Amino acid sequence: MGMGSLSIVGLGPGALDQLTPAARTAVEEAEVVLGYRTYLDLAAPLLAGKEIVAGRMTGETERAREAIARARAGRRVALVSSGHPGVYGMASLVLEILRDAGWRPGDAPAVTIVPGVTALGSCAALVGAPLGHDFCAISLSDLLTPWEVIARRLEAAAAADFVIGLYNPASTRRRRPLAEAHALLVRHRGLATPAAVVTDAFRGGQRAVVTTLERLLDEEIGMTTTVIVGSSRSFAFEGLLVTPRGYAEKYGRAGAGLSAEESR
Amino acid sequence: MGMGSLSIVGLGPGALDQLTPAARTAVEEAEVVLGYRTYLDLAAPLLAGKEIVAGRMTGETERAREAIARARAGRRVALVSSGHPGVYGMASLVLEILRDAGWRPGDAPAVTIVPGVTALGSCAALVGAPLGHDFCAISLSDLLTPWEVIARRLEAAAAADFVIGLYNPASTRRRRPLAEAHALLVRHRGLATPAAVVTDAFRGGQRAVVTTLERLLDEEIGMTTTVIVGSSRSFAFEGLLVTPRGYAEKYGRAGAGLSAEESR
Repeated sequence: MGMGSLSIVGLGPGALDQLTPAARTAVEEAEVVLGYRTYLDLAAPLLAGKEIVAGRMTGETERAREAIARARAGRRVALVSSGHPGVYGMASLVLEILRDAGWRPGDAPAVTIVPGVTALGSCAALVGAPLGHDFCAISLSDLLTPWEVIARRLEAAAAADFVIGLYNPASTRRRRPLAEAHALLVRHRGLATPAAVVTDAFRGGQRAVVTTLERLLDEEIGMTTTVIVGSSRSFAFEGLLVTPRGYAEKYGRAGAGLSAEESR
Repeated sequence: MGMGSLSIVGLGPGALDQLTPAARTAVEEAEVVLGYRTYLDLAAPLLAGKEIVAGRMTGETERAREAIARARAGRRVALVSSGHPGVYGMASLVLEILRDAGWRPGDAPAVTIVPGVTALGSCAALVGAPLGHDFCAISLSDLLTPWEVIARRLEAAAAADFVIGLYNPASTRRRRPLAEAHALLVRHRGLATPAAVVTDAFRGGQRAVVTTLERLLDEEIGMTTTVIVGSSRSFAFEGLLVTPRGYAEKYGRAGAGLSAEESR
């Protein structure tokens, strides 16, 4: 029995062509794979012959502990999630548990965090370039974070003119945080502010819409949706959302003549 | 001659095993590849037989126009950058130019944005799980953005307790924004705040350090460095940086007995 290893793997949005080779290898080489059922489904083509441990979404602590226990027992373990496993994911929980158990890097099990394309990054790519300037990610899940903390972050982000990515915007039963966040953002930014709503990025059922804050709540928004609210510099055109980096202002009107005259 | 296409491609941090299959395909299928020389070097193994158009870093507008012109002329073009091309990248500039030229989706050239693992995501994976809760990305490049705007964002992010990722933290000649940002963050967060400094993630010469705000400026920080400053909830242990998601607080002490007793 070997040393045992635990790879905490980001699968990206779910399409196999968005899965990095490193992530793919981590899953393929694992003997045991754990994850929420939806994420295991994303990795299904890679799981033949492996011991699969599925779990409920709210069983994160149990899943993390099971993954650690299997790795400590000498197995090669992959704990998978969508996107990047360190962005609101399992990686921080696993490391907290390990720290509390006195584990240190170099001890068994060997732990690796394998990055993936984040939900925010996947969704952004499908609607243009909304993340062209400073942005933030805020989770609207008030299961683990008091609403007052979330509201403070929304206020700060809005006041300082960040592009705002909303993770966990809503679920079937949890609608209020989104409604509150929407009201707050309308107060700061205005109804005409462009926003993108992307669901099931790079998967069957993908839906990507660019709209405005005025119409945001008309869209279907659920647990596989990411919402991106533009800054005061963001603009929408023809169904795309763009936040300028500033180059065009520096170099003059960006498309004039499509010539090289503004090049420095 | 075909319709012409322009893929704006994120190469990720630069290691081929962090390059998504979709990004690799976009580069492999291109006839013409444009990018800053450093990014072209990252993709070197994929470029045999292609027309390569290299450029200086500050020639972004020229590079974007050249890419558009080639695609309009019917070529298959890939415009590459590191990380995700829509995160402070070329995607917003290309779309601005296209918008100003009256282009609409469906017109030639076909435009695709191919996401990659962001610099922030790459660096985070190498130091643990600093992005476990709300975070923001702020560019310290004051070439294109007034310092007052940057400072306002730093203040807001610090006051609202975001984890803060600093892009373009410094260059050989541009040291002052980092010093000013550091002073501001020390005022808000305190000297003991943990921070990570990662340079050349997933590349030769990679360096990943977890330190504190007190010692941050002792580290070598340049254009290929990402700095991540923890929130008030982030903690460092054994060279790792972790920002809890909140699960552990919900479920009780995370590592107690490494048993399943806290599972709901």
